[in-house]
Amino acid sequence: MKADDLVLVSVDDHLVEPPDLFEGRLAARYRAQAPRVEQTDDGSDVWVFNGSTIPNVALNAVAGRPKEEYGIEPTAFDEIRPGCWDIHERVKDMNAGGVLGSMCFPSFPGFSGRLFAATDDKDLALAVLRAYNDWHVEEWCGAYPGRFIPMALPVLWDAELAAAEVRRLAAKGVHSVTFTENPATLGFPSFHDPSWDPFWAALCDEGVVLSIHLGSSGQLAVTAPDAPIDVMITLQPMNICAAAADLLWSRVIKEFPPLRIALSEGGTGWIPYFLDRVDRTYDMHHLWSGQDFGGRLPSEVFREHFLTCFISDPVGIRLRHDIGIDNIAWECDYPHSDSSWPRAPEELADVAREVPDAELAKIAHENAMRWYSFDPFAERPRERCTVAALREEASGHSVEIRSYDKGRFVRQKGADLGKLASQATA
Amino acid sequence: MKADDLVLVSVDDHLVEPPDLFEGRLAARYRAQAPRVEQTDDGSDVWVFNGSTIPNVALNAVAGRPKEEYGIEPTAFDEIRPGCWDIHERVKDMNAGGVLGSMCFPSFPGFSGRLFAATDDKDLALAVLRAYNDWHVEEWCGAYPGRFIPMALPVLWDAELAAAEVRRLAAKGVHSVTFTENPATLGFPSFHDPSWDPFWAALCDEGVVLSIHLGSSGQLAVTAPDAPIDVMITLQPMNICAAAADLLWSRVIKEFPPLRIALSEGGTGWIPYFLDRVDRTYDMHHLWSGQDFGGRLPSEVFREHFLTCFISDPVGIRLRHDIGIDNIAWECDYPHSDSSWPRAPEELADVAREVPDAELAKIAHENAMRWYSFDPFAERPRERCTVAALREEASGHSVEIRSYDKGRFVRQKGADLGKLASQATA
Repeated sequence: MKADDLVLVSVDDHLVEPPDLFEGRLAARYRAQAPRVEQTDDGSDVWVFNGSTIPNVALNAVAGRPKEEYGIEPTAFDEIRPGCWDIHERVKDMNAGGVLGSMCFPSFPGFSGRLFAATDDKDLALAVLRAYNDWHVEEWCGAYPGRFIPMALPVLWDAELAAAEVRRLAAKGVHSVTFTENPATLGFPSFHDPSWDPFWAALCDEGVVLSIHLGSSGQLAVTAPDAPIDVMITLQPMNICAAAADLLWSRVIKEFPPLRIALSEGGTGWIPYFLDRVDRTYDMHHLWSGQDFGGRLPSEVFREHFLTCFISDPVGIRLRHDIGIDNIAWECDYPHSDSSWPRAPEELADVAREVPDAELAKIAHENAMRWYSFDPFAERPRERCTVAALREEASGHSVEIRSYDKGRFVRQKGADLGKLASQATA
Repeated sequence: MKADDLVLVSVDDHLVEPPDLFEGRLAARYRAQAPRVEQTDDGSDVWVFNGSTIPNVALNAVAGRPKEEYGIEPTAFDEIRPGCWDIHERVKDMNAGGVLGSMCFPSFPGFSGRLFAATDDKDLALAVLRAYNDWHVEEWCGAYPGRFIPMALPVLWDAELAAAEVRRLAAKGVHSVTFTENPATLGFPSFHDPSWDPFWAALCDEGVVLSIHLGSSGQLAVTAPDAPIDVMITLQPMNICAAAADLLWSRVIKEFPPLRIALSEGGTGWIPYFLDRVDRTYDMHHLWSGQDFGGRLPSEVFREHFLTCFISDPVGIRLRHDIGIDNIAWECDYPHSDSSWPRAPEELADVAREVPDAELAKIAHENAMRWYSFDPFAERPRERCTVAALREEASGHSVEIRSYDKGRFVRQKGADLGKLASQATA
């Protein structure tokens, strides 16, 4: 399929919270304690809440920047692309990148909102978390119906409250809740603890997917303090297999059959090996370990419960039928450093050039739509949803980009993103 | 290739140390403190050294037992297969299983000998470690020339002594030293610390491979105390990718080009995804992280330095050219629970049925021979090295086994292993 003709729904992007997020959303008694943005002496903007200071790390907002400028230093709002935190600029960037739909993970609260969970005053924590969720649904996703898959932050510290928040937001059309790779490492009961059951039940009742983003365990994949940073960058996504194993072997998916789990930013190329490994583990050990999937193999159970995704994964694409063609979604990862925005459509079309159109459609948008009960075509005719159609709408939107050419990215200054569609066609 | 015709050299097996290992091998002043076997009140045999008590875990010596009897309880020498600890019985078992050559990792000292390294009296530690290494070379491997790849335990606590021990043993024909996945987690300098340089230099000078066995980091892949044991069994081998990333991005392989590393029991199906991941990490990040492989990609550098291996890995076999056909070896894992002994040849022939003979020969023995400078054909004519030929020598050696049939194992009582060759041919 040509890049122009793709319809792209990304199951993993990120937003940088704007400074006015909580304005008008908290009761008077909480306002003084609300998370707020402060400028530090070095000119960077940080979020401050409950005694914690969270910088906006440059590497997490590098979309469109040349790679020489990547780094992990703190940064300021006026140094990062407005599309990171301004919804109107975001949609322009999505159009320029040919992305129809997007699910946006949080930044300063942590992928699973653990900053809020660490607050001693749990009334304050709940008020802040609900304000965040309402802002996300109403202001971020609500500004452009049909362009965003809404997602809730979870109440990590109380499964009953977590269930109530899931139900409250499901009534507003939310079918995704972000969660940690491992609640135990964050100091909460593990996936195996029955205290979570009200939460699982709510997810099943409401058809809400547990979206587990890599790096959300609270444990960085750091081998040693003096290891090169490349080691951590390489390993961080691979650690999500621990969450997959933890949940696959757990009682949770056995006792809550409708539960659906997404391994967000987890990649796909490792899944066939993982599935072979779990089936072999089952074959060799279930007679003494007591595992019982009702006569099925763990790999079959995995395909029923888990959605995987990739940015660009040649191995995963080649092995797509070993993973499950209905279990793979595409992600853009805007504005993080792994993203290929705004040339992601060209990269996907290239890496998937031998994939039949019907299969690529599943990966590019159909699986995401089904798993997350997301229907962008209700808001916009399908023919206006393609990469080419969206890029036409971005005409005049200028940005320094990296071009994708023969498997490599090349810097290209000040391109008019509206012209990309015609370039790609040429 | 038919199972009968395979020539099998296993790069990962295990020995259970016999109680008399240190007899006559220590100076008088160390004898009272030498590691010794004691029987506990529950009838199990344990090794005792330096205040530590190490049980022989049943799961690590289950070769030939029905799976219902697997478990992690401590066990005694008279309850485990003599081939675990008796060299003459071991060779009979190797013959019955059609295995020509074997590299045997230690049990009670830990895969990297960290039990000895934890001793305050470093003179005692060095004496015990050298005695172990001499026993391994002279009594275990020396009893049957051409049947074992000798391997040394490392001196973890002193890189100069480690280098000296490597050189001492290389003079006896040892081309493998077992090592930890991560010295930093064991409390020693990390792979990135220059203090290890004398050790790397000795390995390069003497052509000795650093054999890193999964599970040697001192960190079990346990997600939570209440997680099912299947989670740990699934994840433990996948954690070795941390060692691969740690060393691949390190200055070590850049400054010591002849260094060779084996990822023992690490599996292979994850490697193509890993190599794609490191190349993408390099492409996206090297301009700011400073990584430099002299114009080459990290995946190319990996293939120069790393040997991988599998027990039975359909994904790895399918992707063997993405891994590197010269970088894959076969392992038996006798007598651990992942092993398919004594029907491993049938399993390998089945899973590799579409692999051309020349490629399968590389995987089955040629790569292991080249990496470990091991030449069994110098001791035994090649035609007497096949599975069928070895099994003929096992005639009359009786054992309860699991048969391999259509990708599954079936229990088979009291088989005469000498007859397996004719059964396999039939």
